[in-house]
Amino acid sequence: MSIALQEAQNAALRGEVPVGAVVVRDGVVLASAGNRTRELHDPSAHAEILALRGAGAKTGSERLIGCDLWVTLEPCPMCAAAISFARIRRLYFGTDDPKGGAVVNGARLYDLPTCHHAPEVYGGFAEIEARDLLRDFFRSRR
Amino acid sequence: MSIALQEAQNAALRGEVPVGAVVVRDGVVLASAGNRTRELHDPSAHAEILALRGAGAKTGSERLIGCDLWVTLEPCPMCAAAISFARIRRLYFGTDDPKGGAVVNGARLYDLPTCHHAPEVYGGFAEIEARDLLRDFFRSRR
Repeated sequence: MSIALQEAQNAALRGEVPVGAVVVRDGVVLASAGNRTRELHDPSAHAEILALRGAGAKTGSERLIGCDLWVTLEPCPMCAAAISFARIRRLYFGTDDPKGGAVVNGARLYDLPTCHHAPEVYGGFAEIEARDLLRDFFRSRR
Repeated sequence: MSIALQEAQNAALRGEVPVGAVVVRDGVVLASAGNRTRELHDPSAHAEILALRGAGAKTGSERLIGCDLWVTLEPCPMCAAAISFARIRRLYFGTDDPKGGAVVNGARLYDLPTCHHAPEVYGGFAEIEARDLLRDFFRSRR
């Protein structure tokens, strides 16, 4: 999670919402990324999507069997669905997101009968650091 | 929708699930794409995401104000959320998707109180052609 937090801090320095994500398999980091929606003019360029794309490119498969994803914030519906499509084994997230999350809040996508693959979900990792990064970022923008 | 259908047909020829999408503003096509998840080893490379990314790159903004998106299949949660993030004005889709859709099926993301922006939604365009493309593709794979 320290790598994900560093990616989130780097995102804040670029003026992006500070969220970071890492894809890991067998203790090896396959890809890490921070949010780049503004820089890339890409509404899909959340940290999780970029990390999944990086890991897919690295492994040569869009299915990341046996891979785990660490992210500083509870994934939104877009990222939660992408994590499912990628067959991520375990999802570890930092702070939960009552406004935008779709794992333990909102749509709770993995609990729907139409969800083909749900990762194991573990929340609350480095929760305070992840939350404070977001809070400080939005405070500084007001 | 004819452009979206053509993109879907091209996707099938590449061995990809045949879905196509187009982003239009003021009658001008900004971007069109077919599904490329296998080719790009990218679980997020659905037609809608690629079309949104293309339109974002072309306009220099991740917010596609005043743009409409046409897609042959009801969007999944990933794409439905990306369409919302991109502030798409109107969503026109072909056939609905009881198993994977998240607009009029499943999570019904735009009906959730946490949804910040919901496009106007119109379904059933070229419904039979879009459905038959998918049916023929999956039949040929069995």
